[in-house]
Amino acid sequence: MESLYVIKIGGNIVDNPSLLTKCLQAFANLRGQAILVHGGGKLATSLATDMGVQQTMIEGRRVTDSETLKIVTMVYAGYINKNIVAQLQTLGVNAIGLTGADGNLIQAHKRIHPTIDYGFVGDVDKINCELIQTLIAHPMRLVIAPITHDKQGQLLNTNADTIAQSIAVAMAAQYEVHLIYGFEKDGVLADMNDPNSTITKIDSTNYLQLKAAHTIFEGMIPKIDNAFKALEGGVQSVIIGKAEKMNELINGTAGTTIKI
Amino acid sequence: MESLYVIKIGGNIVDNPSLLTKCLQAFANLRGQAILVHGGGKLATSLATDMGVQQTMIEGRRVTDSETLKIVTMVYAGYINKNIVAQLQTLGVNAIGLTGADGNLIQAHKRIHPTIDYGFVGDVDKINCELIQTLIAHPMRLVIAPITHDKQGQLLNTNADTIAQSIAVAMAAQYEVHLIYGFEKDGVLADMNDPNSTITKIDSTNYLQLKAAHTIFEGMIPKIDNAFKALEGGVQSVIIGKAEKMNELINGTAGTTIKI
Repeated sequence: MESLYVIKIGGNIVDNPSLLTKCLQAFANLRGQAILVHGGGKLATSLATDMGVQQTMIEGRRVTDSETLKIVTMVYAGYINKNIVAQLQTLGVNAIGLTGADGNLIQAHKRIHPTIDYGFVGDVDKINCELIQTLIAHPMRLVIAPITHDKQGQLLNTNADTIAQSIAVAMAAQYEVHLIYGFEKDGVLADMNDPNSTITKIDSTNYLQLKAAHTIFEGMIPKIDNAFKALEGGVQSVIIGKAEKMNELINGTAGTTIKI
Repeated sequence: MESLYVIKIGGNIVDNPSLLTKCLQAFANLRGQAILVHGGGKLATSLATDMGVQQTMIEGRRVTDSETLKIVTMVYAGYINKNIVAQLQTLGVNAIGLTGADGNLIQAHKRIHPTIDYGFVGDVDKINCELIQTLIAHPMRLVIAPITHDKQGQLLNTNADTIAQSIAVAMAAQYEVHLIYGFEKDGVLADMNDPNSTITKIDSTNYLQLKAAHTIFEGMIPKIDNAFKALEGGVQSVIIGKAEKMNELINGTAGTTIKI
């Protein structure tokens, strides 16, 4: 089975031009099939301020009203996505930038919550694997912005981590999929105050021990739970680590590898 | 030879939601292969005001400095393009929205002018016909935003009329291409004060007569010269008329058809 790397890079990488360039160079040097999913970044917030659009937060989460949706569509699908594509083109990667609406790549529905209205936020329903196959075979590399649609004409702001995971799981029937979460740290740390304390491997056994010992706690737990969900869905491995060390992450010489 | 319709809709259609919807419905009803190229609109100007970005005009043309390029990339490639794609998806059209950077669809170079620096404005060099073929065959319909790239990492603001014409000419070797310029008027008018005076057909013979009689003058001359250039490049016909009457334009029951 051929390998496919689904790589997600977060907003703080997108916000840092030199880090982003390093990361795109690593993506360009990567051999084999690869898909890039990017997050948002600070530009959406500063644009909202310029446009006088108030940002509402409910329980720490941003509410996507219609004006905020307009802003994230402009920033994520327009500015960030196209600049990444143009940069990759100069690095010899034939990139194509898409949202979930394009070619009906990612169909989603507006989030339904019993008490909170998050606005135009989408939860993923379906990935168009056939389209991904066609584009990969051309050959091109997909660059995906965190915007989906409901196929009823509504664009939806969607979590980039979830998009990466959904694509990884959907493609697992045809490829040996490796899901990579690239962020600013070296990986899952044994000691959060020591950047050199990366836990190299997590499996279902030592995960329980690490949780019991409170080495892994708080925000990292849902992230790793999510990784195990991807693995249960057929993904070969989930790797968390420094975005610009993509090749080392794949080789297992950097980051944290999560396997069942 | 199979027919291919390359349809350009201008900014004042994009700015008018009900007109845009009518136009997209007509596009959805159109049988056969079709590509949509859209222009800008007023949103870029109002966003520039919100962001405090001064717009510089030289001899009636907007200069695209780096901040303006950021704005047009957000508005054209992000907001307008993705909203058109989402609307077409709900109308049963499997649309895919692209800029010239995506899949290296349209390569351009920064305009070189002996005295004026127009900034990040692109003149088209090359259309990636192979990519268009692959996407058409999937099947999908392309929705193209007027942003190109130089393959050196630079995005470029590019005239939508020119993009439509360049694609039409490039595809003429493989398809019977009809280039349609959809705008707010019924076509080329014999009397500019009479909206019902559409000239049904213009060929190289009556064009000379219409120019000599000053029936066609000023801004319409470069437009029609441009249409003849497309025809010389192998395009079957150029049709100018009301965007929402797309089917009538194609049947020859509305608009002005220009043929050699």
